[in-house]
Amino acid sequence: MPGDTRTERDLLGDKEVPADAYFGVQTARAMENFQISGIPISLYPDFISSFAHVKIAAAKANRDCGVISSEVCDGIEAAAHEIVQGKWLEQFSVDVIQGGAGTSTNMNVNEVIANRALELMGYEKGDYQHCRPNDDVNASQSTNDAYPTALKLTMLTSNQRLLAELKRLVAAFRAKGREFEDVLKMGRTHLQDAVPMTLGQEFEAFALTIEGEIAGLENGARMLLHINMGGTAVGTGLNAPAGYSDKVVEYLRKETGFPFELAQDLVEATSDTQGFVTYSAHLRSLAIKLIKVCNDLRLMVSGPRAGFGEINLPERQPGSSIMPGKVNPVIPEVVNQVCFKIMGNDLTVSMAAQAAQLQLNVMEPVIAASVLESIRMMMNGSCTLRSNCIDGITANRDACMHYVDHSVGVVTALVPVLGYKPSTALAAEALKTGKGLVELIREKGLMTEEQIKEVLEPERMAWPQGRP
Amino acid sequence: MPGDTRTERDLLGDKEVPADAYFGVQTARAMENFQISGIPISLYPDFISSFAHVKIAAAKANRDCGVISSEVCDGIEAAAHEIVQGKWLEQFSVDVIQGGAGTSTNMNVNEVIANRALELMGYEKGDYQHCRPNDDVNASQSTNDAYPTALKLTMLTSNQRLLAELKRLVAAFRAKGREFEDVLKMGRTHLQDAVPMTLGQEFEAFALTIEGEIAGLENGARMLLHINMGGTAVGTGLNAPAGYSDKVVEYLRKETGFPFELAQDLVEATSDTQGFVTYSAHLRSLAIKLIKVCNDLRLMVSGPRAGFGEINLPERQPGSSIMPGKVNPVIPEVVNQVCFKIMGNDLTVSMAAQAAQLQLNVMEPVIAASVLESIRMMMNGSCTLRSNCIDGITANRDACMHYVDHSVGVVTALVPVLGYKPSTALAAEALKTGKGLVELIREKGLMTEEQIKEVLEPERMAWPQGRP
Amino acid sequence: MPGDTRTERDLLGDKEVPADAYFGVQTARAMENFQISGIPISLYPDFISSFAHVKIAAAKANRDCGVISSEVCDGIEAAAHEIVQGKWLEQFSVDVIQGGAGTSTNMNVNEVIANRALELMGYEKGDYQHCRPNDDVNASQSTNDAYPTALKLTMLTSNQRLLAELKRLVAAFRAKGREFEDVLKMGRTHLQDAVPMTLGQEFEAFALTIEGEIAGLENGARMLLHINMGGTAVGTGLNAPAGYSDKVVEYLRKETGFPFELAQDLVEATSDTQGFVTYSAHLRSLAIKLIKVCNDLRLMVSGPRAGFGEINLPERQPGSSIMPGKVNPVIPEVVNQVCFKIMGNDLTVSMAAQAAQLQLNVMEPVIAASVLESIRMMMNGSCTLRSNCIDGITANRDACMHYVDHSVGVVTALVPVLGYKPSTALAAEALKTGKGLVELIREKGLMTEEQIKEVLEPERMAWPQGRP
Amino acid sequence: MPGDTRTERDLLGDKEVPADAYFGVQTARAMENFQISGIPISLYPDFISSFAHVKIAAAKANRDCGVISSEVCDGIEAAAHEIVQGKWLEQFSVDVIQGGAGTSTNMNVNEVIANRALELMGYEKGDYQHCRPNDDVNASQSTNDAYPTALKLTMLTSNQRLLAELKRLVAAFRAKGREFEDVLKMGRTHLQDAVPMTLGQEFEAFALTIEGEIAGLENGARMLLHINMGGTAVGTGLNAPAGYSDKVVEYLRKETGFPFELAQDLVEATSDTQGFVTYSAHLRSLAIKLIKVCNDLRLMVSGPRAGFGEINLPERQPGSSIMPGKVNPVIPEVVNQVCFKIMGNDLTVSMAAQAAQLQLNVMEPVIAASVLESIRMMMNGSCTLRSNCIDGITANRDACMHYVDHSVGVVTALVPVLGYKPSTALAAEALKTGKGLVELIREKGLMTEEQIKEVLEPERMAWPQGRP
Repeated sequence: MPGDTRTERDLLGDKEVPADAYFGVQTARAMENFQISGIPISLYPDFISSFAHVKIAAAKANRDCGVISSEVCDGIEAAAHEIVQGKWLEQFSVDVIQGGAGTSTNMNVNEVIANRALELMGYEKGDYQHCRPNDDVNASQSTNDAYPTALKLTMLTSNQRLLAELKRLVAAFRAKGREFEDVLKMGRTHLQDAVPMTLGQEFEAFALTIEGEIAGLENGARMLLHINMGGTAVGTGLNAPAGYSDKVVEYLRKETGFPFELAQDLVEATSDTQGFVTYSAHLRSLAIKLIKVCNDLRLMVSGPRAGFGEINLPERQPGSSIMPGKVNPVIPEVVNQVCFKIMGNDLTVSMAAQAAQLQLNVMEPVIAASVLESIRMMMNGSCTLRSNCIDGITANRDACMHYVDHSVGVVTALVPVLGYKPSTALAAEALKTGKGLVELIREKGLMTEEQIKEVLEPERMAWPQGRP
Repeated sequence: MPGDTRTERDLLGDKEVPADAYFGVQTARAMENFQISGIPISLYPDFISSFAHVKIAAAKANRDCGVISSEVCDGIEAAAHEIVQGKWLEQFSVDVIQGGAGTSTNMNVNEVIANRALELMGYEKGDYQHCRPNDDVNASQSTNDAYPTALKLTMLTSNQRLLAELKRLVAAFRAKGREFEDVLKMGRTHLQDAVPMTLGQEFEAFALTIEGEIAGLENGARMLLHINMGGTAVGTGLNAPAGYSDKVVEYLRKETGFPFELAQDLVEATSDTQGFVTYSAHLRSLAIKLIKVCNDLRLMVSGPRAGFGEINLPERQPGSSIMPGKVNPVIPEVVNQVCFKIMGNDLTVSMAAQAAQLQLNVMEPVIAASVLESIRMMMNGSCTLRSNCIDGITANRDACMHYVDHSVGVVTALVPVLGYKPSTALAAEALKTGKGLVELIREKGLMTEEQIKEVLEPERMAWPQGRP
Repeated sequence: MPGDTRTERDLLGDKEVPADAYFGVQTARAMENFQISGIPISLYPDFISSFAHVKIAAAKANRDCGVISSEVCDGIEAAAHEIVQGKWLEQFSVDVIQGGAGTSTNMNVNEVIANRALELMGYEKGDYQHCRPNDDVNASQSTNDAYPTALKLTMLTSNQRLLAELKRLVAAFRAKGREFEDVLKMGRTHLQDAVPMTLGQEFEAFALTIEGEIAGLENGARMLLHINMGGTAVGTGLNAPAGYSDKVVEYLRKETGFPFELAQDLVEATSDTQGFVTYSAHLRSLAIKLIKVCNDLRLMVSGPRAGFGEINLPERQPGSSIMPGKVNPVIPEVVNQVCFKIMGNDLTVSMAAQAAQLQLNVMEPVIAASVLESIRMMMNGSCTLRSNCIDGITANRDACMHYVDHSVGVVTALVPVLGYKPSTALAAEALKTGKGLVELIREKGLMTEEQIKEVLEPERMAWPQGRP
Repeated sequence: MPGDTRTERDLLGDKEVPADAYFGVQTARAMENFQISGIPISLYPDFISSFAHVKIAAAKANRDCGVISSEVCDGIEAAAHEIVQGKWLEQFSVDVIQGGAGTSTNMNVNEVIANRALELMGYEKGDYQHCRPNDDVNASQSTNDAYPTALKLTMLTSNQRLLAELKRLVAAFRAKGREFEDVLKMGRTHLQDAVPMTLGQEFEAFALTIEGEIAGLENGARMLLHINMGGTAVGTGLNAPAGYSDKVVEYLRKETGFPFELAQDLVEATSDTQGFVTYSAHLRSLAIKLIKVCNDLRLMVSGPRAGFGEINLPERQPGSSIMPGKVNPVIPEVVNQVCFKIMGNDLTVSMAAQAAQLQLNVMEPVIAASVLESIRMMMNGSCTLRSNCIDGITANRDACMHYVDHSVGVVTALVPVLGYKPSTALAAEALKTGKGLVELIREKGLMTEEQIKEVLEPERMAWPQGRP
């Protein structure tokens, strides 16, 4: 049935697209060319809506510069607004991994906005003389400026959500830190008994160490505020009218609330991906930290009888298909895996970044795919860790105290009193004979009872300068 | 409405599952616990059907050993067969990335098979006294043997498809090698003009270099044939009856056609992931090679006026949203990105592999997720490269010959006649004056016309030992 | 001869050390235990002198707190000062990669300072009653605070030198940017002809893009200012007197000029390596950028006859053992390799960082070895690139202009006049027929001569908003 | 003094070299150009001697083909033989990381051999008319075939030594496996108590798992036997006489004992680095495995009082500068770090490999530097691990047995008797009440005493099919 499709034309010739499609010929070609990951760009709605924001800002700047009419600008804005609100998501089916430096994504957006604007302006889809994907929606733009700008906006938006989730995780750790502030336990270095501390100090350290990563991500995200709108093809600004760059940045600030700035030099900015690399590195840094935290949790919960057994994680599911009653630390385990994935994605980003050539980095789509996947997984992992694990952790106070009472590590506290070498001899004898340290001190008359009490009091060892 | 769910019970207590679900309580818990990647295991149907094969082989071995009845064995086999045929895929919704070392995937399979078997045996879903997920479907198994075995079968199956696709790619390169066997061009080292060769030699080298990677993948896949069925929890074989291991391996061979063998030592095999690491490394090696091949194509097609311009890629889509008439090498570009993704996934695999502890590597699910994604993307990338690019490449014979005629690199052929130092002086003079080599040779009377013809004939330089 | 050695004793018993050695028993054990990389810590003199600074600051703080006498403090300070000035470097022979979280390096420093202090105080080497490696030189310290603090100081010092070197590189690029400001050439995206620009814009972009990385490194180094002196074993501060932490930080500021601050929480700080990971990530980011810059140089110099041929690098050495007259871009090539090494070292750092456990990361020595090697190589690579390559680059103005004159890419400039679709048709016809764009425009009467001149003037295309 | 230098000349002009140097002008230039890593190629004597072997084989093949005289061939052979024997190592000072694809290393070898041959033939150094570095020593060769061939020979030689060292490590683990064959302990999965096994099984698994990696390395090394001698500049064999390739391969086989073969296609082989990538991947696989083994050792030795405490490592050095009596597992820790370094080097190799372009991979020097460093470190790490750690490990039999006696994990053995669900209930009650499993079984009359004895006997659980 002829009515089922409409004919569109581009450099390569005519092509049929579904009559009811908002996308056009270039999207159709891209859908055929790139059947790679099976993940359509619509899986990242933030990316689509960020692109729509960029198109709105560009349209207004173009209108102000006299490049497009007010009527066309209004049409573009109205259509783009619907997209911001989540409409027409199903029209964005090009694969997230694509050749062409994102041209297919940009053209998908240009075509959907053009056709929807046409409808809103009272015309038929495909009747491009009234609103053209390239000359109007993409006016004064190139994929090479619109795509990275939309990606930066997406990352900034996603980063805010990630930070909110991470702050909830920090609060959960901190709450446990307070809950466990009196739980004395042995600190360990090299997995070897060291000196006493509290379980609360350990959980507060988890909170703080994630806060350090939050600061890193905030810092890293700042670089994403520099955009290259108006650079067009190679950064020289060819085809962009005078004043356009400043206007589009200003509109994008208003539109989104982020304090975007024009990059210092648009030629440099057009091939530069330092912002993506740096942000990805901060995600990796967070992953590295969470691996450590989850490994610590798994060590502390090891047992129940043949391990450290210092804490209990909430039971989430039977642990084994063969061993009854076994409950495994499945939540820290899955977060570890999320972190491994993020480290892999970060390598992908760095490979893609180093492949820039001359005036462009054509590998930006795989950077987008990798970073956006990492943010999403990290957000899910952090939420899972908090709600399915941290919030429900309990302490085995007796087991923790038992280690303190029987450890030789407390000999360290004797160094200022007895000196390093005599203390070493004492420790060696205790380990060899199995005797307690205090027992040996008394046997040898090395310290008075008062000294013993003062120096070897576990609480004092955990807070040598007094409780905070 | 009470009829909409049924109540199931496990270690953690009662839980409602949808009345019409084939999965049971443990799957339901896992779906809640792991909302991580958004990718359900059903996205990899091969993995599900491989698991079903494992369950059939185990059931038969258990029946032979008297662990389950013939009736239950038949029920399991019939249910599992439906799964092999692609039925009930929607029942497998646990996230591909999960804690618990794959227990949730294994229990998802156990539960769906048990419930479907119950129906086929004439009972109600959930009426587990007649066929139990753990005691019957999972009999003599642990996740720690069934999961890696199913994954190995999946990888072997996927690898066969990948190899078939790669062989088609090799054939495409080879066909072009023949098509271009007479196209003389300058070979380049360091991107600097070297000595003449043919475009055909270059494409035949592409074919051969991919064949080298095919051999690597075949080699790497061989290690996946060693499985640990019967090891159960930690490899000691506790709860597996005598003779079970050999039987289950034998049944799995018959069932699948792959020459599986029992690992030498099941304790070692239970925590070992060398097979996955090695296979992933071969995928990475292929990615490294394809990056080089695609970069070469992009160099050779560079231009059309300000680049090498030696070949033309088929035009797949308009290249730019701003530059009319521009056609970019989008297919090699997307394959490069696939390769970067595979290198990232390989890092993820290596991180997960090094995280094994004591008797198990609990990180196997992210290994599965990464390797299976890499295989799929590589298959798609290879297919795209061949059908959308290689098959349609044409040569710019004149441009290629022009470079040969004007190059100074051909001076190399003079070394055996004139010596390295005099040839060096000649080259320097040619480059400085812009004169042709032959012109200079004649001016200086260094060689006779016959010698010139014999030594500097481009064809002879491309095939110094004669045409093959 | 008995006089050739002296006997020292530790936890494991007696051991002979050379009589004239300033190092003692623990260094001697470490030299036996760790024969790994063959690289002694003395290869990084900055690291040794940074450690000496830390020991001076600690000694003064200990004296102020009454832990050691003024006499001992003076002895330590005098000995450490000699080390800062580069003396006794040969006494530091423990392998840079070592188990024990750096204890061997710390004890090497403690022992050498103690023995040299003994001499300066008028005693014999080994007569430790007057100045003990552990009780005096290491007083109120643990390897777990002294080692990372010394490493941070080393990195800060090395970073300053690296930044100075990078700024010289930036200046070199910028000078070329000015030198080439009039050299018109074709910009390229996807290695395909795009629109005109100048070679000067390209080199200025190189300058700016490295400046972006300098800013990144400065930013990353800031995190290294947070130190954990006074945390001692696990961060609780056991055995450190009240007030010690603030004093030692204050003395270290004075001693070094860096605005160090005490970390917010010493338990957290003791196992945290975020500062190292972040700094390494910025080194990687710089490496990624330099790979791109060097690849661009190698593309632009490709030829001389069968490549882009836009620039000439200074000739550094004959390029080939077989091809006379060949000169290869060996300097960008070696810098690329430096960058690959830095990316590998960065992975090593991230692996080591994620291996932290509980109260410590025992893998810090390999972090030190990797980061310090990366800084050194990057410094050498940057210096080599500037002095052996960039400074001597010349432009092939004619070749550059030839591309502009013959390119079809300039059609982009017609879009605002003719529209995207008509321009596309024009470009297609030019490419197909081999005709020039202007020729076609005239044939078809599409523009007046004045319009042609105004729109297609290459200078205008390079600076559409006028020359800067 | 003029006699202190001699003047040499190349494409770039005249240059002084030390009069007594065997190296010549091109080496001198390279020493100036590449001051990068500070590591001279002489640090890898195997690499130098491998190169000498290649030059001998080439010289003989050239003599047979009439390219060089017998006299010159004899001179080259005699000079190269001295180098094989380790003489003149100090003449090889070019940096291991260099641009130019190894040309500087190749020319360093060519020049030293030429000058030493001149001396042996009775001429002066520098009197090249009688034996020329390029025309004679390098006859029929290019860096592009000689360098990778020498590198492959180096890797094959080093690999043999590494394998011998690894086999000693395997033997050490196996000996401990036998020593501990009766030591019952709890197996652990997810760091959670699983089912009983023996410490001997664990150490035997360590032996086997390293054996798996030995097999991998042997497999990977096989690919290094394919060499491209005779390919010369780009693989077409220009300037190599007919028959030369086969002869040189044959001579190299005889010379070295390795069954080298000519690569199938020399154009393909000239840019191919699959052999290096694959071998490096096997080194990485070994590193991944050793990380796991060392982590296991560190877990098992954790304590002495607040950890697993199952084994004791030999004490190698005092563990702490502040904590007396602390002995840390410094040897596994340093091996972990070696492994992280190898993983980093492997990334460097993969980056360098993917950077091949057209007819060559100019990044081979950094591949050489990375792989050779990895082999050396791995050899040292393996030796250290065996001699300073494994050989001296002792078991804490009582601690191990205590865990078995008190674990709930043994409930798994009840599943075949009681079923999964009843066993689950029993485990839950035991964990909740703290009661022993046997106590509960008796209370509930679930099994007879005979059954209890038979089913729960730890030895039976460790070897369900009987002792091997």
